[in-house]
Amino acid sequence: MSKVAVIMGSTSDLPVMQEAIDILKGFDIEVESDIVSAHRTPEKMFDFGKNAHIKGFSVIIAGAGGAAHLPGMVASLSPLPVIGVPVKSSNSIDGWDSVLSILQMPGGVPVATVALNGAKNAGILAAQIIGSHDKCVLDKVILYKEGLKEKVIKGAESIKK
Amino acid sequence: MSKVAVIMGSTSDLPVMQEAIDILKGFDIEVESDIVSAHRTPEKMFDFGKNAHIKGFSVIIAGAGGAAHLPGMVASLSPLPVIGVPVKSSNSIDGWDSVLSILQMPGGVPVATVALNGAKNAGILAAQIIGSHDKCVLDKVILYKEGLKEKVIKGAESIKK
Amino acid sequence: MSKVAVIMGSTSDLPVMQEAIDILKGFDIEVESDIVSAHRTPEKMFDFGKNAHIKGFSVIIAGAGGAAHLPGMVASLSPLPVIGVPVKSSNSIDGWDSVLSILQMPGGVPVATVALNGAKNAGILAAQIIGSHDKCVLDKVILYKEGLKEKVIKGAESIKK
Amino acid sequence: MSKVAVIMGSTSDLPVMQEAIDILKGFDIEVESDIVSAHRTPEKMFDFGKNAHIKGFSVIIAGAGGAAHLPGMVASLSPLPVIGVPVKSSNSIDGWDSVLSILQMPGGVPVATVALNGAKNAGILAAQIIGSHDKCVLDKVILYKEGLKEKVIKGAESIKK
Amino acid sequence: MSKVAVIMGSTSDLPVMQEAIDILKGFDIEVESDIVSAHRTPEKMFDFGKNAHIKGFSVIIAGAGGAAHLPGMVASLSPLPVIGVPVKSSNSIDGWDSVLSILQMPGGVPVATVALNGAKNAGILAAQIIGSHDKCVLDKVILYKEGLKEKVIKGAESIKK
Amino acid sequence: MSKVAVIMGSTSDLPVMQEAIDILKGFDIEVESDIVSAHRTPEKMFDFGKNAHIKGFSVIIAGAGGAAHLPGMVASLSPLPVIGVPVKSSNSIDGWDSVLSILQMPGGVPVATVALNGAKNAGILAAQIIGSHDKCVLDKVILYKEGLKEKVIKGAESIKK
Amino acid sequence: MSKVAVIMGSTSDLPVMQEAIDILKGFDIEVESDIVSAHRTPEKMFDFGKNAHIKGFSVIIAGAGGAAHLPGMVASLSPLPVIGVPVKSSNSIDGWDSVLSILQMPGGVPVATVALNGAKNAGILAAQIIGSHDKCVLDKVILYKEGLKEKVIKGAESIKK
Amino acid sequence: MSKVAVIMGSTSDLPVMQEAIDILKGFDIEVESDIVSAHRTPEKMFDFGKNAHIKGFSVIIAGAGGAAHLPGMVASLSPLPVIGVPVKSSNSIDGWDSVLSILQMPGGVPVATVALNGAKNAGILAAQIIGSHDKCVLDKVILYKEGLKEKVIKGAESIKK
Repeated sequence: MSKVAVIMGSTSDLPVMQEAIDILKGFDIEVESDIVSAHRTPEKMFDFGKNAHIKGFSVIIAGAGGAAHLPGMVASLSPLPVIGVPVKSSNSIDGWDSVLSILQMPGGVPVATVALNGAKNAGILAAQIIGSHDKCVLDKVILYKEGLKEKVIKGAESIKK
Repeated sequence: MSKVAVIMGSTSDLPVMQEAIDILKGFDIEVESDIVSAHRTPEKMFDFGKNAHIKGFSVIIAGAGGAAHLPGMVASLSPLPVIGVPVKSSNSIDGWDSVLSILQMPGGVPVATVALNGAKNAGILAAQIIGSHDKCVLDKVILYKEGLKEKVIKGAESIKK
Repeated sequence: MSKVAVIMGSTSDLPVMQEAIDILKGFDIEVESDIVSAHRTPEKMFDFGKNAHIKGFSVIIAGAGGAAHLPGMVASLSPLPVIGVPVKSSNSIDGWDSVLSILQMPGGVPVATVALNGAKNAGILAAQIIGSHDKCVLDKVILYKEGLKEKVIKGAESIKK
Repeated sequence: MSKVAVIMGSTSDLPVMQEAIDILKGFDIEVESDIVSAHRTPEKMFDFGKNAHIKGFSVIIAGAGGAAHLPGMVASLSPLPVIGVPVKSSNSIDGWDSVLSILQMPGGVPVATVALNGAKNAGILAAQIIGSHDKCVLDKVILYKEGLKEKVIKGAESIKK
Repeated sequence: MSKVAVIMGSTSDLPVMQEAIDILKGFDIEVESDIVSAHRTPEKMFDFGKNAHIKGFSVIIAGAGGAAHLPGMVASLSPLPVIGVPVKSSNSIDGWDSVLSILQMPGGVPVATVALNGAKNAGILAAQIIGSHDKCVLDKVILYKEGLKEKVIKGAESIKK
Repeated sequence: MSKVAVIMGSTSDLPVMQEAIDILKGFDIEVESDIVSAHRTPEKMFDFGKNAHIKGFSVIIAGAGGAAHLPGMVASLSPLPVIGVPVKSSNSIDGWDSVLSILQMPGGVPVATVALNGAKNAGILAAQIIGSHDKCVLDKVILYKEGLKEKVIKGAESIKK
Repeated sequence: MSKVAVIMGSTSDLPVMQEAIDILKGFDIEVESDIVSAHRTPEKMFDFGKNAHIKGFSVIIAGAGGAAHLPGMVASLSPLPVIGVPVKSSNSIDGWDSVLSILQMPGGVPVATVALNGAKNAGILAAQIIGSHDKCVLDKVILYKEGLKEKVIKGAESIKK
Repeated sequence: MSKVAVIMGSTSDLPVMQEAIDILKGFDIEVESDIVSAHRTPEKMFDFGKNAHIKGFSVIIAGAGGAAHLPGMVASLSPLPVIGVPVKSSNSIDGWDSVLSILQMPGGVPVATVALNGAKNAGILAAQIIGSHDKCVLDKVILYKEGLKEKVIKGAESIKK
């Protein structure tokens, strides 16, 4: 069964990244989370990146802020799809640094970037990646989208009253 | 076998998007490409988005520029992972509009965004998504990355001379 | 008689968009408002866009934030003038994403964009559009502008004291 | 019959603004164009703005670049809907000044802003405004949109070959 | 004797613009302040701009926010030096619109722009302009600068303790 | 009689700054120009700034690009009004650095900033500053503005043909 | 023994700059701090810059906000390495002005720029500069980095519980 | 004797980075240059970063463009001072990504960032770092700065003719 790694550069990223963990659990997908700092624990990051596909992960979600190198470095070390979450951390310039240092990867080493603080969407995207070959998860994604629709319909009704 | 759709908003996006097609063919992954404009052929986009997973696609790559709605709208219509390529088209403000209107999707509907004009990386990311459950493709990704390394090593030798 | 539709992507946009509704009511123009999400209820958006001119609307006001696709998609589906309101939602990067993804529409599919959170101006613009062929509404617009003037004159007097 | 004014701040804006004139002529809508500079001919602008609705115009299209005050000032003087075209002139900072000084109008005085250099869309928007109460023009807009669709379909066929 | 006009687009700009008034009074320079809105009282602005040099003003300070047209329009109407103060008003996009729509004036019509919310500096600049031909005011400017120096020296002493 | 100093950080700024010199000569105002680099000739800048008002200058125009410190440093050293011209030099990031490092001066030390590469406007502004107390120059400014008007009127005629 | 100067443009910069002082003291490196304003005490800055290397300093850390000229001017006056700290002061436009006016120095006069408000890193960088020829300080830097690692490891453990 | 490493992410960065090499040679400082890609040769980068101080380097200069992770990652691996050169590569968004992903390093891991494409300044800064404890190099830096001055003085003479 597919397993997703959710890593982040600092414990201060957890409030944002927890949304990825929660949504994956809601899809009954196995998640392992860890703090892996590109700049403060480069060896740990190296080990993680080199071995993630061997340890049975299918997808990696990596969140970081400021000059955010974790998603791109893990993408350089692992053959797995890496989803990057730009975190609007306290040392960030309105989030632009987080976004650009994750998104603008050079040719050869992609990071699947989601919106600023978009950890929930990172979780859904991981589910969609698994769902692309696992019909059971695909059906859950379809169901989840139905749920979004219903919520909007209800909201629409409420404002008409 | 996995199949990837490469769609784009306009024929003028083709020079950029061709890189996605080429890299996927290099990985021996089946590709189908089409022009699907969110703003000029909304019905075609609707049909495409609703049926892509039924027609056997695993991953969708969508490229567009300016107020680029194609990747996000297809992501809203399909349960498949959608990779968005912001194209720096002639009517774009230095690419910022292309990037932000693809990246900043609301909670519930992710687009896996790559760098501005990063169609090559979109192709590699699609291969990695397929490789996450297809060992043969994963091995090709690993090999591809080895190739990148060798190219750098050779470049390094040349500048030392 | 002319009728204006005020739609928005989410109930969280209502505090901003209510200003459009209020100003139109102040001009005695009929308004219908609804939640229509491009990304979560694409079918509803499709129906709305395709049929708005048949249902008797003259102008559509659409507000959304982040990667804001609602105004542009409705503009692609309807022959009516569409006024777009970029909303500075919580998931927006200082409003730049909302502005650019509404403003930078490709050739052929305009959206009449107003200022960030400028729903009041969207309402006035809708009145001006109706007023361009309805003398009674035009006179109300002229009167409204006189009112703005008087308010400034009074403010000027107060600071001179 | 409806008549549209196309004004611009300088003869150097004409290559961009000509697209608005051309598209309106294509819709058989009467157009009058003029150079009206907010900063160099403020009296002419004043007269124009004060009298446009009396002279039988229904819609005003105003293009300018840099600190572009023409669209907003005309909007302050006229009760008619004013469409603003930010022009990426030679003295502009990548077009950001043109866009922001047209778009960000204060409450009470809207300008219907289109994309940077989006004069063609300004023309279509003017046609849609007229079409909102003139069935003949509305039908032309619908036809025009069909034409866009067909062009994309043909482009799609060509890339499949 | 020289007289300075301090005008602003809205009473909401007064808390910022008061600093210009205060500093000029500190230099014993006569000041007259008024609310003059480019967009809501264009006629008043016209009269003001056309007659300011006739009414005995030497310098005009004009503050406005968002699509801030007041400084540039007054500069187009008056032969006097116009100092523009970009105000970071509530409807501004982080002040960028205020700055760019005042600063980026076309060739022929300068506005002497100061920093965002820099009304104090606008007042000092007006004093310097008067001081350029009035030795008494020049001496006050020199004295004022000495005062700045002393304040820093004292601050430096306090942190050394 | 009034005299204006036009200084710039580098000979490479001359093509831009020449416009200030030319326009001042057109107003028959005495000009002296020099290369004064804040970063490479700080002592020369110091001497210049300290003595400009003693040497009989009324106004200083200073142009520089990138991290442009010349206008602000001269403003800190001289009691005269300093006009800053942000130059879009080759080492500048689209001119943003030039603009912000000249415009955003702290309270107490204003620089009268003009548009990016706006040396012509710097010259006109210097003339307006002199004109604020010299009727002869004021009349020339009024005449110059009439000339601008006529040029637009002629342009308007040409496009009507 | 090596000595570091920590200077800043204003006492209001102290809360940010204190971090540089603290970290250097933690490395047992001698620090002297002072308020030196480029714009309000240019003579003091001149003396400081000219003499810092004579007075026995090895490295200069300079912090300032807005149009931040202190780091660059000191770099123009001193042959020592100057570390610039862009401070997000109250008069700054989101910190962009502080960053660009420190970073974008012309060829010949470098400033070693750290992140916005990155005074702590300025202190560490000064230690690294000293450590590049002082084995004792280098060892402390290595130890400090080990400490960062351990803190992350502990954080990682805590989130696993 | 001190030795400087000049590394860069790609051979395409060489035209920019050569300036660092040249200036250091001009100071008679030993230089070794290499291509080290964070994303394509992460192991090589790891080895380089871990061992640079052991191999006798005093300072590291690292240049990269786009999502530029090389300077920051090397800074995380080495206790030496790392100078980062943001390169405006072809895949960069006007250089903003290069600048922000090098500058905005988190607390604990500084990179001494220079201007966009500022490799020459990186070389000078490296010389200044060595000069901070090597009087011979310091004197060369002082001499170099004198040379800058003379060049400006000559330029000033030429424009006076």
